[in-house]
Amino acid sequence: MDSTVRVDTAAARVASAPNAAERLASLAYNDMRRVDALILERLDSHVELIPELARYLIEAGGKRVRPMITVAAANMLGHRDAAPIRLAAAVEFIHTATLLHDDVVDESGMRRGKIAANLVWGNASSVLVGDFLFARSFSLMVEAGSMKALGVLSAAASTIAEGEVRQLSAVKDIGMTVETYMQIIDAKTAALFAAAARVSGIVAGRPAAEEAALEAYGRELGLAFQLVDDALDYGGAAAKLGKSVGDDFREGKVTLPVALCLQEAQGEEASFWRRTIAETRQSDGDFEQALAYLGRHGALEATLDQARSHARRAREALAVFPANEWRTALEDLADFVVDRAY
Amino acid sequence: MDSTVRVDTAAARVASAPNAAERLASLAYNDMRRVDALILERLDSHVELIPELARYLIEAGGKRVRPMITVAAANMLGHRDAAPIRLAAAVEFIHTATLLHDDVVDESGMRRGKIAANLVWGNASSVLVGDFLFARSFSLMVEAGSMKALGVLSAAASTIAEGEVRQLSAVKDIGMTVETYMQIIDAKTAALFAAAARVSGIVAGRPAAEEAALEAYGRELGLAFQLVDDALDYGGAAAKLGKSVGDDFREGKVTLPVALCLQEAQGEEASFWRRTIAETRQSDGDFEQALAYLGRHGALEATLDQARSHARRAREALAVFPANEWRTALEDLADFVVDRAY
Repeated sequence: MDSTVRVDTAAARVASAPNAAERLASLAYNDMRRVDALILERLDSHVELIPELARYLIEAGGKRVRPMITVAAANMLGHRDAAPIRLAAAVEFIHTATLLHDDVVDESGMRRGKIAANLVWGNASSVLVGDFLFARSFSLMVEAGSMKALGVLSAAASTIAEGEVRQLSAVKDIGMTVETYMQIIDAKTAALFAAAARVSGIVAGRPAAEEAALEAYGRELGLAFQLVDDALDYGGAAAKLGKSVGDDFREGKVTLPVALCLQEAQGEEASFWRRTIAETRQSDGDFEQALAYLGRHGALEATLDQARSHARRAREALAVFPANEWRTALEDLADFVVDRAY
Repeated sequence: MDSTVRVDTAAARVASAPNAAERLASLAYNDMRRVDALILERLDSHVELIPELARYLIEAGGKRVRPMITVAAANMLGHRDAAPIRLAAAVEFIHTATLLHDDVVDESGMRRGKIAANLVWGNASSVLVGDFLFARSFSLMVEAGSMKALGVLSAAASTIAEGEVRQLSAVKDIGMTVETYMQIIDAKTAALFAAAARVSGIVAGRPAAEEAALEAYGRELGLAFQLVDDALDYGGAAAKLGKSVGDDFREGKVTLPVALCLQEAQGEEASFWRRTIAETRQSDGDFEQALAYLGRHGALEATLDQARSHARRAREALAVFPANEWRTALEDLADFVVDRAY
């Protein structure tokens, strides 16, 4: 009886959801509540600063896209036990640790609409609490009980670090090619999405081809997600000014939109990118000028076209699985990721 | 024939070793060469900065005490396969990652007699390469194949982070008690020594009591090791000036010698510690004055007495194991750790 009620409520939530992400979130509602409970439980520590700082970031929300992929993939495969819940929490811990360390690395000012944790508690605390979350993520994986899933997630974690190091040396690099940039985001972003999807196939005991399909889904979705983020940092398809816009430009971070301009820039435009990116000497009006150059090259549209094509590949990767509401929700998530930009 | 030759050479090396640490190093020579080869292999990456930075630290030497404990404990138990070698490399990776992050946290100037890596490549690189090593350590553990050992090492890693965070909030804290300080070093130092010893018992399939004995050996040895380090930062038993002395004092870091003074300090001495530690306002002659106060309270002798008693407990913990040359070497290592201070 209780379970009937829950199913009805879930169905009602799913039917009334305004978009694909909300629909997936509604479908996964009960599982994600378990993931959230586990996250809160495992970031606890007798050292008060740790839960305080970690909750600051984790409760700021974020979309929990990565753990939701783990949970949804397991459901799509009809696999329902504690392992995917634990792995989903582990995935979110790795992601949160990465954000904490990123803020130190980037000297960011804001994160998830709040002042970055390192500016509140200091770099040292962000480094160490990140380490704590990273360690706890492995404890959660141990509880999930799959050595193979552990191998996939630890490999993803070292790939992420490699991607971040490469990105570090690519800041202010006006020689950045499109190819190099795609390799960087494949490592720093897509690897964790890929692992998040794949581990559900592993704990569900699926054959290698299905594992590979899940990995491909996650990887393509991750690439689409990152490219849309890159476009949004210049205002998205509308290339407009607004809040939380312009961070990449200000930091001299070359992302795909700028890399696309750089491969064609000449004369005055080349000097502009050299001054604003390579030398990071910027003044009022430079961001507007950057938007104008992006417009001239159609760089945001091209970036979003790339994102859309990765999203399509993500959707196609799921074709090997039997159709069910979870597969549909994961497919729609791929489109939604791109629709954010419009 | 080849093996006879190797044994003879090893025996000759062991016989001529000048002290217990060298004797253990000679005994473990072949295994440690395998550990070193594995370390070099696994810190490799197509991202050149990673092996470059990691080798800078790893090739600077360090005593490799922690992985040597793993290797020696496995040998003491007669367990010879690849698992302890892999776990030993994983332990050294965790330790190295911690050092890299510590340097960022402490804003240290020197490490292992070289300029700290973060001053050469920047904080961002040290954070990210630390993350890379941490991730790789878990990949090594996966290859070692024991989920239980993985659980022990990941728990140790989160305990280390907790200890570091506590130490962070304890800097400049003249209210630091001896008890709190011992809890901090138990977490930040002894936990990894304990895990390093215990995992060999795990992969050797030993009963819980033997695992606990190994854990106790590692923990007590780790405490002795840290207390001796603390005393050495004030010149050791001789309380003398010299190079690599005075770092803790300059950073306002309260370690056992100062905590022992603080619990008795009054009047002028209390003001001295308040100014030099709590406010970290120091001038010429303050370190000499600190040494004088330490001398008045017998704080270095008391710290080394504590270290000696932990070393004795480490030695005693091994009594449950059958006597062999490896047990003797591990026992002697406990004494050697303390003898460094004289």
